[in-house]
Amino acid sequence: MEREIKIGLLGCGTVGGGVWKVLAKNRDNIQKKVGADITVKRVLERDKEKAVAAGVPAEIITTDINDIIDDPEIKIVVEVIGGIEVAGEFIHKALKAGKSVVTANKDLLAVQGRELYELAEANNCDLLFEASVGGGIPIIRPLKECLAGNKIEAIYGIVNGTTNYMLTKMTNEGSSYKEVLAEAQAKGYAEADPTSDVEGLDAARKLAILASIAFNARVSFDDVYVEGISKITARDIEYAKELNFVVKLLAIGKETDGKIEVRVHPTMIPVNHPLASVNDVFNAIFVKGDALGEAMFYGRGAGELPTASAVVGDIIDAARNIIKGVPGRIGCTCFDRAGCSCFEKKQIKDMGETQAKYYIRLKVLDRPGVLAAIASVFGNQEVSVASVIQKRNIGKIAEIVWVTHEVMEKNIQDALKIIAGLSIVEEVSNVIRVEGE
Amino acid sequence: MEREIKIGLLGCGTVGGGVWKVLAKNRDNIQKKVGADITVKRVLERDKEKAVAAGVPAEIITTDINDIIDDPEIKIVVEVIGGIEVAGEFIHKALKAGKSVVTANKDLLAVQGRELYELAEANNCDLLFEASVGGGIPIIRPLKECLAGNKIEAIYGIVNGTTNYMLTKMTNEGSSYKEVLAEAQAKGYAEADPTSDVEGLDAARKLAILASIAFNARVSFDDVYVEGISKITARDIEYAKELNFVVKLLAIGKETDGKIEVRVHPTMIPVNHPLASVNDVFNAIFVKGDALGEAMFYGRGAGELPTASAVVGDIIDAARNIIKGVPGRIGCTCFDRAGCSCFEKKQIKDMGETQAKYYIRLKVLDRPGVLAAIASVFGNQEVSVASVIQKRNIGKIAEIVWVTHEVMEKNIQDALKIIAGLSIVEEVSNVIRVEGE
Repeated sequence: MEREIKIGLLGCGTVGGGVWKVLAKNRDNIQKKVGADITVKRVLERDKEKAVAAGVPAEIITTDINDIIDDPEIKIVVEVIGGIEVAGEFIHKALKAGKSVVTANKDLLAVQGRELYELAEANNCDLLFEASVGGGIPIIRPLKECLAGNKIEAIYGIVNGTTNYMLTKMTNEGSSYKEVLAEAQAKGYAEADPTSDVEGLDAARKLAILASIAFNARVSFDDVYVEGISKITARDIEYAKELNFVVKLLAIGKETDGKIEVRVHPTMIPVNHPLASVNDVFNAIFVKGDALGEAMFYGRGAGELPTASAVVGDIIDAARNIIKGVPGRIGCTCFDRAGCSCFEKKQIKDMGETQAKYYIRLKVLDRPGVLAAIASVFGNQEVSVASVIQKRNIGKIAEIVWVTHEVMEKNIQDALKIIAGLSIVEEVSNVIRVEGE
Repeated sequence: MEREIKIGLLGCGTVGGGVWKVLAKNRDNIQKKVGADITVKRVLERDKEKAVAAGVPAEIITTDINDIIDDPEIKIVVEVIGGIEVAGEFIHKALKAGKSVVTANKDLLAVQGRELYELAEANNCDLLFEASVGGGIPIIRPLKECLAGNKIEAIYGIVNGTTNYMLTKMTNEGSSYKEVLAEAQAKGYAEADPTSDVEGLDAARKLAILASIAFNARVSFDDVYVEGISKITARDIEYAKELNFVVKLLAIGKETDGKIEVRVHPTMIPVNHPLASVNDVFNAIFVKGDALGEAMFYGRGAGELPTASAVVGDIIDAARNIIKGVPGRIGCTCFDRAGCSCFEKKQIKDMGETQAKYYIRLKVLDRPGVLAAIASVFGNQEVSVASVIQKRNIGKIAEIVWVTHEVMEKNIQDALKIIAGLSIVEEVSNVIRVEGE
């Protein structure tokens, strides 16, 4: 058995600095658990001062990736640079050199996951990525191992802290989208260009990774239907409260009849659903399995130390495998056929075929027969209505909110096209899916 | 690599039947993930009809444990008989025969855990027990692996579904302890002799297992301080609401300055704490780690299929280790010294030394100076008061509720002894610890 496992750390920014700190602070404990000392031999970082400020000795900092790739003593490469091109190239090199890789890089895995998982297997290496979804929350390993006996039926995730913080503020304080965005930017929770968070792209990347594991398939970012939260108004939040719902940006994955649906969109869920009380920057992933029933994993989805917690957990796992001589222990290659994989090709469902309940807010002319006209369009498109609220009148305009029973997306879209064309309809103000009842 | 992993199933009751069903239903999926077919070769069950009813072919049912222990083809033994003596003997035999063992047996592990873990290591076998705490909720493996980089500071668990169901009912319906107990018994949630659940013994067993893993120590059932919920009245629940608290039976483990405290008792927690909305028979374990921050694992803590989900997850893990030739992959023996273990001897804190806030309900004579007299006793014992409610008078008797700031248990007990002896004090009606603020 080896008494020391040496790692190369690519990047010493927020997460990299956190990894350095956690490995240093809990070194003795980790050594006891692993049966070997885990040490960082090299840190790749252009900003030398930043790395030194995190506590890294100057002499182990390098700007040349080959100092790590070509060093046979380095058995594990930890990639926390982020971004796609450079990080992808470094991970490729590391895996080809037979090193196990730990990464937090959701952007990369969401588009090149399949290729990288296969490269890791071909080289008998681990490629571990617990930190890529849900920050410190254990979710990838529980899905791969603890829940491996289940057929996973659905996952519902609050996987973006920025938007959850914003929606929580809007709910608690009645503020507008613009106000909470400005506040989130001021607090550093949202970036200057908030597109990736508020338009659901970050959540979609995480969903691609989660769905690939949960459904034993290959789901990529492009497969995911995405709507962001920028269209959510204080008015919608108010109606949600009245209907005993909470609005959350959910990443939803389901498998039915061998087809997978993956979608990220604002969603109304009942106030007593476990996800409804996940507030502020917290994340949670709710899982339904055929044996498990319902379970939820809750915690901090980002931040220096929570993310480092997940990365270090992966480093420990990779180290245990190296010590026992079984890197790549949990693989996907069938035992008896080359080129065979445990992953299955599964069809991605058309968005039009997915089913949900719908909240629909309309502005209409306030005159007799309007309600009947709209109701008859819904009826013709086989959209069954669960509840209607009409109470606010603005001059000659009335606002009507409809909540439907479960219905196919394409029927709703057809109905809405017809409704939008009615002369009595001023506008279709918003449409929000309802789940979890 | 082996193409078939054969297991012996000890017991075909609720959980055993569930394990049989899950392995049968998801056999193809499991085979793809593991790279080998997992089959049950033998089932040990005295009640043959029960096993047959669960779908087990009559010819593989046996009543002789040696049919399993002596069969070299059987690599994994799954113990779901329950109880201590017989189950313990069977597990001993299986481990000594070099078989990996999966068990859901909290009673056994809470008292003989240490001995059994060491026996497994000495024989290079896995001893896996995810199902022993929290039913289907992944918690043991996340603590051992995903969170291995953390120093775990505290765990707070709702780990007994019966009492959580009862407390939820009392909270929602204002019913008395006796009423909800009768109802829980009628529904089959509580046993005819409910002692093990309502007096906190079941939760204490689970806490011993959790604390051993979380704090890298050996904690046994006898180390745990235990109070049950039978003393909780509708009156206390009412006051809790008024104070924005919820009453839960919590299993609490903390490590401070190398000392461990482990206690199970009714606890008031703030209504906005994540554990506060864990209702009915659901379980949840809330974990604080030095890197992780706060996380929570939520799900079904019991039942045929949820428990089977955890057992089958362990079977898959044991099978993967056998296939790779590394049973007992995550061990605790140091790499360089025989007899050395990663577990540390840690002192269990005296209950008197633990710290909490306290809710104290007193009945006193309704006369001037009473409040001052009691407050001065608290002051003399260095108990600082956070809030006082006095409003119900029953004839000449007044009820006063105190909530303290954080204080040492022994100071509270000393203060209460003096207070109980005051002539103006009719009774100390209840004392409930407050946590999680």
